[in-house]
Amino acid sequence: MVKTYRKIKCKVSYDGTDYAGYQVQSNALTVQQLIEEAIEQIAKERTTIYASGRTDAGVHARGQVFHFRTACSIPVHKWPYAFVTKLPNDIVVWEAEEVPDDFHARFDVKEKIYRYSLMNRPFPDVFHRKYAWHVPYDLNLEAMRSAANYLIGEHDFTSFCSIKTDVEDKVREIYDISLEEHDEGRVWLTFRGNGFLYNMVRIMTGTLVKVGTGEWEPDRVRDILEACDRTAAGPTAPAQGLTLWEVKY
Amino acid sequence: MVKTYRKIKCKVSYDGTDYAGYQVQSNALTVQQLIEEAIEQIAKERTTIYASGRTDAGVHARGQVFHFRTACSIPVHKWPYAFVTKLPNDIVVWEAEEVPDDFHARFDVKEKIYRYSLMNRPFPDVFHRKYAWHVPYDLNLEAMRSAANYLIGEHDFTSFCSIKTDVEDKVREIYDISLEEHDEGRVWLTFRGNGFLYNMVRIMTGTLVKVGTGEWEPDRVRDILEACDRTAAGPTAPAQGLTLWEVKY
Repeated sequence: MVKTYRKIKCKVSYDGTDYAGYQVQSNALTVQQLIEEAIEQIAKERTTIYASGRTDAGVHARGQVFHFRTACSIPVHKWPYAFVTKLPNDIVVWEAEEVPDDFHARFDVKEKIYRYSLMNRPFPDVFHRKYAWHVPYDLNLEAMRSAANYLIGEHDFTSFCSIKTDVEDKVREIYDISLEEHDEGRVWLTFRGNGFLYNMVRIMTGTLVKVGTGEWEPDRVRDILEACDRTAAGPTAPAQGLTLWEVKY
Repeated sequence: MVKTYRKIKCKVSYDGTDYAGYQVQSNALTVQQLIEEAIEQIAKERTTIYASGRTDAGVHARGQVFHFRTACSIPVHKWPYAFVTKLPNDIVVWEAEEVPDDFHARFDVKEKIYRYSLMNRPFPDVFHRKYAWHVPYDLNLEAMRSAANYLIGEHDFTSFCSIKTDVEDKVREIYDISLEEHDEGRVWLTFRGNGFLYNMVRIMTGTLVKVGTGEWEPDRVRDILEACDRTAAGPTAPAQGLTLWEVKY
């Protein structure tokens, strides 16, 4: 009998605290590895999954997207329930749908949304300590918004990319950056773009915080962009504040 | 030289996940023990602290209040900074003030506010898994509000108290119970009252959820109150959803 394969697209949340990132590594526990092992247990077949992109060690995801092909006959909408029984409780697959065979979770991405969470208050918040960066200095959000405006649009983001990358084309387009204040000092920086380089959101955040504390003027960000030099930008903000919020196709 | 003692009132947040509750026990790690050890390191003097009340194993606090007496001469507003260096990052003392010597964190309480957090969605939320109770069934919040109204006021709450208690007077007054819906299925139940019995908020929540799922009618709560019998009420909701939010004096 010929096996019929279907392609399934899933949305997954994970708490990155205890993982060495998304992508499989030979020597450390990753989210991809656990999902592939879960599929193997459910479908009785070894499968590779393809995500919208990797996330670094300690970075979280609310709506990471991945696809895989399977001959397993369980109804598509049952896959999230099957995953619940096979995955630890810091990884939750919460949506599954069948997609055409030419869909690709990485190559078909139209937009990615990342959210960086700051806790701007004198003392840290115990409940967000694994999900936010505690910044105890007063932040001037208006200055940060002015600085962020320089980043919006299509630019060469070499200054905002880790030097540990093989990617050559460093031109990306940022559609929007918003800064929202919430209760008790929580500040959300939401970055929307067509793609992001290695550490790019964390370096942009580290740079905007330098502006927020008054150490740098907002228009310095324009000079940093033009420098095309990683050392011109601010520090890489800690991983735990970053969440891959949503991926659009 | 005669030592001058001052009384200091502090507000503390803690993530209860890894603790056997607030109150010192001989055989398990508690929040009180760690705070007393921190004070001993800072003030070089053994001190007992007195809180507004205990919280159970796994229950969190945003604004637990405690007081202690000390001869240590460091300025009162510096105490939270001193605590940061001596406490693990899941316990944060975020406010300190000097109070008159007749202040007592437990006996002077005028109002306590507890918040119980539900995640009402098909799949659990990885970021709130330690801070909320995941309820995957549809909840009728209007029915829950009707049921909650029976609990407001002064009542004998014997039905809503764990039988593992030595307290004899089970009359308490609830000033208000509110149910708020937030993003992505988060529901906050906020209980305000002059005091709460052992497990009382968790048993009220377990009972209200029985009403929310439609298993019980709202007016059954009136009968449960009148029964004065713990077995008449619903189950004790899990500890991790509960937070001692604020204590008023």
